[in-house]
Amino acid sequence: MSVTATNTTEIERILAGEVRAVARAISKVEDHLGDAAALMKEVFPRTGRGLIVGVTGSPGAGKSSLVDRLATFYRQQGERVGIVCVDPSSPFSGGAILGDRIRMQTLGLDPGVFIRSMATRGHLGGLARATVDAVAILDAAGYEKIIVETVGVGQDEVEIVKTADVSLVVVVPGMGDDIQALKAGIMEISDVFVINKADREGVLRTEKELEAMLSLAMRPDFWQPPIVKTVAIENKGIAELAAQIARYRDYQKQTKASLTHRASIARWRILELLQETLLARAVNREGAQQRLDALALEVADKRRDPYSAVEEIIGEAISNQQSAISQNQMPIADS
Amino acid sequence: MSVTATNTTEIERILAGEVRAVARAISKVEDHLGDAAALMKEVFPRTGRGLIVGVTGSPGAGKSSLVDRLATFYRQQGERVGIVCVDPSSPFSGGAILGDRIRMQTLGLDPGVFIRSMATRGHLGGLARATVDAVAILDAAGYEKIIVETVGVGQDEVEIVKTADVSLVVVVPGMGDDIQALKAGIMEISDVFVINKADREGVLRTEKELEAMLSLAMRPDFWQPPIVKTVAIENKGIAELAAQIARYRDYQKQTKASLTHRASIARWRILELLQETLLARAVNREGAQQRLDALALEVADKRRDPYSAVEEIIGEAISNQQSAISQNQMPIADS
Repeated sequence: MSVTATNTTEIERILAGEVRAVARAISKVEDHLGDAAALMKEVFPRTGRGLIVGVTGSPGAGKSSLVDRLATFYRQQGERVGIVCVDPSSPFSGGAILGDRIRMQTLGLDPGVFIRSMATRGHLGGLARATVDAVAILDAAGYEKIIVETVGVGQDEVEIVKTADVSLVVVVPGMGDDIQALKAGIMEISDVFVINKADREGVLRTEKELEAMLSLAMRPDFWQPPIVKTVAIENKGIAELAAQIARYRDYQKQTKASLTHRASIARWRILELLQETLLARAVNREGAQQRLDALALEVADKRRDPYSAVEEIIGEAISNQQSAISQNQMPIADS
Repeated sequence: MSVTATNTTEIERILAGEVRAVARAISKVEDHLGDAAALMKEVFPRTGRGLIVGVTGSPGAGKSSLVDRLATFYRQQGERVGIVCVDPSSPFSGGAILGDRIRMQTLGLDPGVFIRSMATRGHLGGLARATVDAVAILDAAGYEKIIVETVGVGQDEVEIVKTADVSLVVVVPGMGDDIQALKAGIMEISDVFVINKADREGVLRTEKELEAMLSLAMRPDFWQPPIVKTVAIENKGIAELAAQIARYRDYQKQTKASLTHRASIARWRILELLQETLLARAVNREGAQQRLDALALEVADKRRDPYSAVEEIIGEAISNQQSAISQNQMPIADS
């Protein structure tokens, strides 16, 4: 794909930090439109200046308030802040819109803050890939701090937060009997632990529990994740949190583990994009959606099993490709 | 793929409910081994007798205790119960193992209960597909109730719970400021709401909030999701919960929405399996992993962008396929 005149303009406007160009570029990667690939090829080499902070943790931990306060803190240092919120809820439920509206009340219309919620679009996946692409666009556009916040805490969300330079896991005092399981799952991804709502009862116990877990684990980079206590709604502990984020960033720069870490993120990104592209190629052919609907009905009626349905779709895609090649068409062009 | 003598025996042992055959079959689909497809083709037509109950909700809501008590309740009715726990933590963290160990203390070694944790295996995904396959195996093996519990609450977890006949969402009183977002995201998937730890302060407010949300939504099947209050660790409200689960199951049988629902589940299953199969075909070729590692390093060093890396992998896979076809090999056989 050659770089067109339009794309050159587009990338220039993104690099200049034009908000509307940034917003449009993110919509483009979110919808995985035809020229999203061409755009991202230009964006990618311009990334790496911003600091990407990933935030996850259980619902009710006050992640949104914490992110808002952290963003405000960075703004007070004169930095531009991008916030990307990953919301797995469907477009119908209005989850993403609700989140944006609440946020707007807090951060107002500060032009130095760019806020975007990424929601699931249909059944073809790509939310994780679209999110890391959106972060890359904000990075290229010169946002000094980019905060990625997840609403859920699932497999995809953990993967997304892993791609950040610094990952925070937010917990609250007295989380109950599931905290063991949660902690086990997110232990590896957390560079800084935050106990939010630290004015609540049970904060000492939660801190001791976290310390006990941390003493058992040894990270490949030998970093000891600090535990920061905050009360986000009262703006307490935010400066300390920012300091710990900066401290890990500095530590990371000195260690060799950084390239290994970046390579594993890159591998994940390639696999996510590969998966999405292969699926799109298989189901975006003419008539493929109708065929898929028909096969789904057969499977629902137990006249067919999912495995043979998949074999049939792949068989059709291959024979389709054969005829495309014999007619001398480019088989790798995106549809 | 033809049905071999070994598979015939295997499926017979599964249908007879032999625990070791069931466990081995689940391991097979979890690892996506070569003959997993052949096995699932035989399993699939034998499913549909068991009732599948999906359970999700935020960490700390006490899902595990609730699932254990519900399983015990069903056991007391003389039913066999399968429990599949979806744990997105990595195999290194021991999350899945921890969950199993805790559970074993509660449900003991009752031969009428089959417990299995499904954890992420590597970077190739397939957790959701493996989970629904495991449920299908338990269904074919004659378990009357199959409970699917997720540890996380993310996109994949919501999709998995959607595939159940009856989906429960578990909340606790006083979840705080993120409950709005959580509720918006999971509103559509919940057939029955459970307020667990209902002896805690704030239960009335949580109930009112849920009711308010429910009054705004209209489901396509016109079902009004009931709210059940439980205190799982004291075994309170479990019989009422089981009654509401049965009530929704009966309701579902009478409505036309059921086929649409099953078709949309089937569509999702086909797409998940298609995605996983296409990715496996692209990266399981000889030398593909080394190529992927090399490309990941180039992307990590910003010498290359993920999009052109993916184009290269697809180009190589296609030319590989060409030579396979010209040598008269079967291109759609799984490796």
